[in-house]
Amino acid sequence: MSFSPFDHPFLSGLLGDGEIAGYLSAEADIRAILSFESALARAQAGIGVIPTEAANRISIECIRLNPNVEQLGAAVARDSVVVPELVKQLREAVGGSAATHVHFGATSQDAIDTSLMLRLQTIVQIFADRTAEVVDFLHGLERRFGDCLLMGKTRMQAAIPIHVSDRLRSWRDPLERSLKSLEHLEFPIQFGGAAGSLDKLGEHGAAIRAALAKELGLADIRQWQSQRDPVVAIGHYLSLLTGALGKIGQDIALMAQASGEGEISLEGGGTSSAMAHKQNPVAAETLVALARFNAVQVSGLHQSLVHEQERSGAAWTLEWLILPHMVMATAASLRLSMQMLASIKSMGTTDLP
Amino acid sequence: MSFSPFDHPFLSGLLGDGEIAGYLSAEADIRAILSFESALARAQAGIGVIPTEAANRISIECIRLNPNVEQLGAAVARDSVVVPELVKQLREAVGGSAATHVHFGATSQDAIDTSLMLRLQTIVQIFADRTAEVVDFLHGLERRFGDCLLMGKTRMQAAIPIHVSDRLRSWRDPLERSLKSLEHLEFPIQFGGAAGSLDKLGEHGAAIRAALAKELGLADIRQWQSQRDPVVAIGHYLSLLTGALGKIGQDIALMAQASGEGEISLEGGGTSSAMAHKQNPVAAETLVALARFNAVQVSGLHQSLVHEQERSGAAWTLEWLILPHMVMATAASLRLSMQMLASIKSMGTTDLP
Amino acid sequence: MSFSPFDHPFLSGLLGDGEIAGYLSAEADIRAILSFESALARAQAGIGVIPTEAANRISIECIRLNPNVEQLGAAVARDSVVVPELVKQLREAVGGSAATHVHFGATSQDAIDTSLMLRLQTIVQIFADRTAEVVDFLHGLERRFGDCLLMGKTRMQAAIPIHVSDRLRSWRDPLERSLKSLEHLEFPIQFGGAAGSLDKLGEHGAAIRAALAKELGLADIRQWQSQRDPVVAIGHYLSLLTGALGKIGQDIALMAQASGEGEISLEGGGTSSAMAHKQNPVAAETLVALARFNAVQVSGLHQSLVHEQERSGAAWTLEWLILPHMVMATAASLRLSMQMLASIKSMGTTDLP
Amino acid sequence: MSFSPFDHPFLSGLLGDGEIAGYLSAEADIRAILSFESALARAQAGIGVIPTEAANRISIECIRLNPNVEQLGAAVARDSVVVPELVKQLREAVGGSAATHVHFGATSQDAIDTSLMLRLQTIVQIFADRTAEVVDFLHGLERRFGDCLLMGKTRMQAAIPIHVSDRLRSWRDPLERSLKSLEHLEFPIQFGGAAGSLDKLGEHGAAIRAALAKELGLADIRQWQSQRDPVVAIGHYLSLLTGALGKIGQDIALMAQASGEGEISLEGGGTSSAMAHKQNPVAAETLVALARFNAVQVSGLHQSLVHEQERSGAAWTLEWLILPHMVMATAASLRLSMQMLASIKSMGTTDLP
Repeated sequence: MSFSPFDHPFLSGLLGDGEIAGYLSAEADIRAILSFESALARAQAGIGVIPTEAANRISIECIRLNPNVEQLGAAVARDSVVVPELVKQLREAVGGSAATHVHFGATSQDAIDTSLMLRLQTIVQIFADRTAEVVDFLHGLERRFGDCLLMGKTRMQAAIPIHVSDRLRSWRDPLERSLKSLEHLEFPIQFGGAAGSLDKLGEHGAAIRAALAKELGLADIRQWQSQRDPVVAIGHYLSLLTGALGKIGQDIALMAQASGEGEISLEGGGTSSAMAHKQNPVAAETLVALARFNAVQVSGLHQSLVHEQERSGAAWTLEWLILPHMVMATAASLRLSMQMLASIKSMGTTDLP
Repeated sequence: MSFSPFDHPFLSGLLGDGEIAGYLSAEADIRAILSFESALARAQAGIGVIPTEAANRISIECIRLNPNVEQLGAAVARDSVVVPELVKQLREAVGGSAATHVHFGATSQDAIDTSLMLRLQTIVQIFADRTAEVVDFLHGLERRFGDCLLMGKTRMQAAIPIHVSDRLRSWRDPLERSLKSLEHLEFPIQFGGAAGSLDKLGEHGAAIRAALAKELGLADIRQWQSQRDPVVAIGHYLSLLTGALGKIGQDIALMAQASGEGEISLEGGGTSSAMAHKQNPVAAETLVALARFNAVQVSGLHQSLVHEQERSGAAWTLEWLILPHMVMATAASLRLSMQMLASIKSMGTTDLP
Repeated sequence: MSFSPFDHPFLSGLLGDGEIAGYLSAEADIRAILSFESALARAQAGIGVIPTEAANRISIECIRLNPNVEQLGAAVARDSVVVPELVKQLREAVGGSAATHVHFGATSQDAIDTSLMLRLQTIVQIFADRTAEVVDFLHGLERRFGDCLLMGKTRMQAAIPIHVSDRLRSWRDPLERSLKSLEHLEFPIQFGGAAGSLDKLGEHGAAIRAALAKELGLADIRQWQSQRDPVVAIGHYLSLLTGALGKIGQDIALMAQASGEGEISLEGGGTSSAMAHKQNPVAAETLVALARFNAVQVSGLHQSLVHEQERSGAAWTLEWLILPHMVMATAASLRLSMQMLASIKSMGTTDLP
Repeated sequence: MSFSPFDHPFLSGLLGDGEIAGYLSAEADIRAILSFESALARAQAGIGVIPTEAANRISIECIRLNPNVEQLGAAVARDSVVVPELVKQLREAVGGSAATHVHFGATSQDAIDTSLMLRLQTIVQIFADRTAEVVDFLHGLERRFGDCLLMGKTRMQAAIPIHVSDRLRSWRDPLERSLKSLEHLEFPIQFGGAAGSLDKLGEHGAAIRAALAKELGLADIRQWQSQRDPVVAIGHYLSLLTGALGKIGQDIALMAQASGEGEISLEGGGTSSAMAHKQNPVAAETLVALARFNAVQVSGLHQSLVHEQERSGAAWTLEWLILPHMVMATAASLRLSMQMLASIKSMGTTDLP
């Protein structure tokens, strides 16, 4: 629990998401970094770059290791990355000559970016499942209320009557495009070594990278240590998703305002400390806030494209400051969307004035 | 010529791009809107919704029409969109009963968004050609200097020697991914009518939209009047591209600073009013500025995803304020990239200390 | 006229502002740069650094000079700044030994930043006058409708009745704070020479800067070539202003939507190409778009605070790409605010259900 | 401890700040909200709006109350704000007839915004102290190395020699302006009641607000529930500060790159998992990341200026998502700045080539 609204003793009731928070935890990061180190050793043993026994020893310790987190924190204060200290602890655990084969040919960024991609791949799959659930729910609403009438509104003013199904489709279409876009969203392995050239691996570099990618279930592309378009593409996906859900939230808040005209009827909703009679469409409003939040954040990811030389601490750290919050905002947005849609008792009317 | 730095009496020497500016001009917009109106009439005639003679009449006048721009400006001040007045002028030119068939079943946004997509499709094709040219040039630099050595730098500090080819590849990879991403970038027709439901066209709506899309060479998708992900996707493409080029600019500015160490040698460069001896890597720095500019702007496009109801004047107008400048920044970035790369006399050295 | 929506053959009907555009023109910039060069020569003559006759000669030519703009554009393409070429043309016009005293001890950025501040000072004064006019108008509305009732709305839902005066005050207060903030907004002279140290002026540097500031009516502070908080402070002022006006626009668009409940009655408003009966609150919506636009842009100015070394072409150019559009957005916002407020026929009712 | 990089088991070693995190904690928020409720009761008793005994009872329970945080979280999920449930718990603790006087005439936003301002006022005072410490340290560096030479660099290229004092002054000036700006930065009380009109307090509203402000040490201004310029002004201050420090970080990273030319010599610095010999200027780079982070976030605060009607859940929640992270980024930036400056062993040389 933290001061961050996404992981806050009481604000997380509104803005948090326990399932996704787990994937962003320090523990999950360390486990994924160790998966990288383990897979790296096996890939290198497979090609004969390090001894098989060393790889086995490393793999076992990658599972067993229970790192000293306090020492990790102290090391990050100095190194800005957790890997040098974590590798040191892993080497101590492995011991003997095998220790020298730990993290061979890799750099901190390889481990950290790969950990990120492993976890983002899972997270995005969860988001896809939740998006599909929202889409299904919207289909259900169409079956129930699609033939009812709604005053279509353009430029905030009454235009002509439409069917509820018209509006529901305008909510659904971008979500379906979001799902379809996942066919082309890549989660690549990061493997470049100290300065991106896999200098210690000679001719074996590409083969080891391919084996590593295969074992970890990531896309095999050349290192992207200083080329951050793969990260920005994921941020784009996240913000398009919260934007589409934010539009639904905005519409529902406006419909609730016009509930007297039969636009929508909602169950529950927040209470007010000053007005006992009020029902606030809290989830709807929060969707708007989360959409605008991600729309702001996405700019920071694009700024990080201007990445100095082989690897930039400045541009890279900026991603760390931005991406976890974007992921959490998306998680909260999907969760609140389902909650909001489930609270709809009716939409539209059978006749309009 | 304007105060906008992208179209300014003297700043456009650095930041302008005459070719692309043409596609963004009021004239090009009007011509594309008239193409929409003409294609709409023909599509409707093809399906029998309006008389063929009316469609012919409309098509001819769409070519002939030389609109009164002053009246257009006065009308935009009132209506915020140019279409009502332009359609009025077109109807007067068409005359007779055919006039009533002009713009039938469509709304201003259909014409304006379609005009935008028609022109963006062409612009992006030009950008792709220029990107391919940059990629080719980078291949050429690799052939010339790829085997030379460069001190790889991470976190702004000397790390280990790399080959010039390593750095060139890190510049090229995201550009090649940019080119590949165009396979999935859609330029859709906009056709929804007053409130998105194509209310005046009954059962023929989808067929007319398909015919219209086909004639204009755009993707046929359901109306996206309030779902702006197609526009944001294009903004994402633009900012990824300027980001990749900005990274090259940043690296070259840093290499020029270390030119004493043989990192790079450049021809030309800007002069200084205070120091006659200086050679400024003006193009390189400008690429950084353009990348950061687009990284800022992309946030505005994401904000416009929160689009009220059937059509929002506020969210839509925000796009107009953002997108033309982003397109121009990208044009300038591609132009300056070629200029900068062409000024490279050498990269790297044969031996490093 | 340009593709920029702020200076566009027809969009400028909505988004342009002729008065302010003039101050941002290339011509106004050149005149202000020449004012700097002229004042610099006189300040230096006053202290005896250059001959008085040379200063007189320079001052006269600064008024007379009609620069060759085409050559300026070509030079900017090379130098990225207009000053080296402009100074060259000025020196040719001055001729003789006086020519060597032109621009003595200054650098391009001194002239350009000072030109910017001179023009921003005037522009902000105009904005203050317009803001005061809006405030007055809001006072007038309070006198006319302040005692009428309005349903207060919180979280987009009806809360409790308020008076129209309550809402009008919430619109007015931030505008009054905007006016008050101008007491502390500085428009400083820029004068640092080649690398900020006024190296050519020895002990006279500070005295010349003070004389220059006094003559030009700017604040006298040490050079801020790489410290851009004075520019960001102005951007902050602009975006606070458009934000306050955007809030009014948002409220009026929502009130117009609830016009059936007597919240507001407006005259005029935009027409629709699809629905003849509709009255769109075009100005209100545009105010929201302009507020969100500036809220995006302000981020770019803050990015430019990370300014490399003595002077950065990248960070500085980013300001040029951002600030003129922000100024124009503010101009349009103030103009449209008056237009929107003047269109109010009534606000509130005498009784609420 | 959280996934947020500012409060993360190991990343907080680099990016965290325990002192400031405390002020942002849920506990500190609740304590400050209870201070508001307590001061409100006393202010109302002072004017005779509620009985003195009730006020005493409330004040005592505001100190004693140990709220059930789990129930607060559940309530926030429903209400989006913590106040209704907290007030309920407080009323239960107070008991009897005094319970009805708790939170009288106030709304959730009054308590939450006031709590925010109380804590921000303290935080900004701490930031001012830290800033003054950085300024002092820069003065000290000037005394030690001010007369040494440095190659002044403009547009990333060597320009002319300057003194170390020149560069130090360019670092210091914006920090001194930041300190001076605090004279005009306001931390206002929030007190408006359900819809901003203090409807329940009749003629006593302004007097109670004044007493409340005085007791809490905040500025007394009319309610700003929907006018968020006071919050944006603080965000502006934060981002100007991190921008100024980010510029120092950028310069020091570049100087470290040119350490062979005697620009700077640093102690310590981060180690690398791949290159044992490297010393990374981790703090310097992180300052750049933090500056760019805040430059992104500030846009979100400006977006929240477009605040619907009397109070908007959407715009307000957006602030919550943005501001705590900005505060933490500023805290980390000030902490790292001192650490970085303290690591400077020397700057500049006695002779330049």
